[in-house]
Amino acid sequence: MIDRLNRVFPPLERTLVGIGDDAAVLQTPPGGGCLLFSTDAVIEKVHFTAATPPALVGRKALAVNISDIAAMGGVPLWAVVNLGLPESTAVSYCDRLYRGLAELAEEWGVEIVGGDTFRSPGGVVIVAPTVVGKVEKNRYILRSGARAGDLILVTGRLGENPDRKHLVFQPRVREARFLAERHPPSAMIDLSDGLFSDLRRICAASGVGAELDAAALPVRPGVSKKNLPAVLRAAGRGEEFELLFTASPRRARALLKTFKSSVGTEVTVIGKILPEPGRLELVDFSGRRRSLPVSGWDHFKA
Amino acid sequence: MIDRLNRVFPPLERTLVGIGDDAAVLQTPPGGGCLLFSTDAVIEKVHFTAATPPALVGRKALAVNISDIAAMGGVPLWAVVNLGLPESTAVSYCDRLYRGLAELAEEWGVEIVGGDTFRSPGGVVIVAPTVVGKVEKNRYILRSGARAGDLILVTGRLGENPDRKHLVFQPRVREARFLAERHPPSAMIDLSDGLFSDLRRICAASGVGAELDAAALPVRPGVSKKNLPAVLRAAGRGEEFELLFTASPRRARALLKTFKSSVGTEVTVIGKILPEPGRLELVDFSGRRRSLPVSGWDHFKA
Repeated sequence: MIDRLNRVFPPLERTLVGIGDDAAVLQTPPGGGCLLFSTDAVIEKVHFTAATPPALVGRKALAVNISDIAAMGGVPLWAVVNLGLPESTAVSYCDRLYRGLAELAEEWGVEIVGGDTFRSPGGVVIVAPTVVGKVEKNRYILRSGARAGDLILVTGRLGENPDRKHLVFQPRVREARFLAERHPPSAMIDLSDGLFSDLRRICAASGVGAELDAAALPVRPGVSKKNLPAVLRAAGRGEEFELLFTASPRRARALLKTFKSSVGTEVTVIGKILPEPGRLELVDFSGRRRSLPVSGWDHFKA
Repeated sequence: MIDRLNRVFPPLERTLVGIGDDAAVLQTPPGGGCLLFSTDAVIEKVHFTAATPPALVGRKALAVNISDIAAMGGVPLWAVVNLGLPESTAVSYCDRLYRGLAELAEEWGVEIVGGDTFRSPGGVVIVAPTVVGKVEKNRYILRSGARAGDLILVTGRLGENPDRKHLVFQPRVREARFLAERHPPSAMIDLSDGLFSDLRRICAASGVGAELDAAALPVRPGVSKKNLPAVLRAAGRGEEFELLFTASPRRARALLKTFKSSVGTEVTVIGKILPEPGRLELVDFSGRRRSLPVSGWDHFKA
């Protein structure tokens, strides 16, 4: 779908990065910093259910887009929100959804500057925010910069309270800014489709391969380190919204020293980048190489 | 709905104009010009039908947002497009929709820099673009600047081929820029909900009243100038996407001299702004004052 889009919409000069990364990177009209531009919709029956508290629906819709801005190394500034509601929706549902959205917006200094509400003729709630952020020129972080020999790192723990994390996660803005300012990764992405899928994205964009070390994967404490399928299930599921990034061994060593004490979040080396494009491997608990699982949960998206 | 949004999302300092006008006005991070930010969704069964050619659906979705940028006096630069498709949608439908969108984008120098495609569980096509544009600081035109004594003007002709115009209209970017640069209106809006509804919006935002002259309304040639209901129906319908604006009599006289020869579009004085808020009148063909019709077609939107 991204290829189709890129064929139909070839990039202009004032656009530094168009379709295909976590967010577009736009040169502001007069010069100076760059704008980041992210849009992702959350849909009832796909990303949440009718039983999901509306405040968490609003929160999630904004959080996934803030997470995309973070994955570019940027700071979110503004959002507009397109909200599709079934005809029968109570006003209180809408109010609570907006409140959840507004609370997260306030927490991250994001201002909601516009929106459109439409009747959703299909009877499902659709929340489609667009978030605009900023990043210093030459400080944004793409998916395409991973180089052979780079280490692969991930923030936080994977597989934690999976029914809830996708609704209440904190977008990793502080972590991303710490990296962008102090220890710029060679490539970065947020884990929306799952560790294995999103690592494949970095590798495809960078033209490299990768190996992950199963024993190093930072899964939640309850998962037995002896049960490989359980570890891979926990690590590979989608909507974790942690940062997955690559850095040279020297840079990785430097950031490992101060990351947790500076931003309060764990960071773990989980593998390394290989020179061969398409070589995607997992080193299991007994040191055997296997092919990398294909995906956790790959939702339908462009 | 706008009031609700404004209560939940109070504006921050870097935002010059938040929710409630045609587009948000944002101060770019380093200074310089301003960004404009518009989002409006078009929905099957609300704004088009299953029989509408997909290229025109894509075109319209982008055009309504470019029109909002124009109504602020700005130039559109970038767009992202959220596209919701029923599961059964043919790839060719999607391609043709994108192509219609891309053609209009190219025509106006707008770059599509991102997008998300989602399965529309309700089975209707939803196209929700967000367009970002630019405008010089202090040159953007709000709805709130109309003053007693200002004349009311409108571009183009109203009621033309109503089944088709809402799909193929040209957003009035050139006209708006000509005004913003040479003869800044005191207030401006694009006609999305209809002349009467949108004039009410200008009056409400500006705290003034207005009178329209029925005989002056520039309706399409086929409408008898003796048939008041027909004239009002033609003039009042929604989705005309002409510019409605106000200007002092002196400025109006100046712009009337050069507008058509400069941009090729008609412009007509159709009434004047009254000092009394809430006084909304129509002067009919015999010079009698009536109250202004309430609306043409007021679709459900925030």
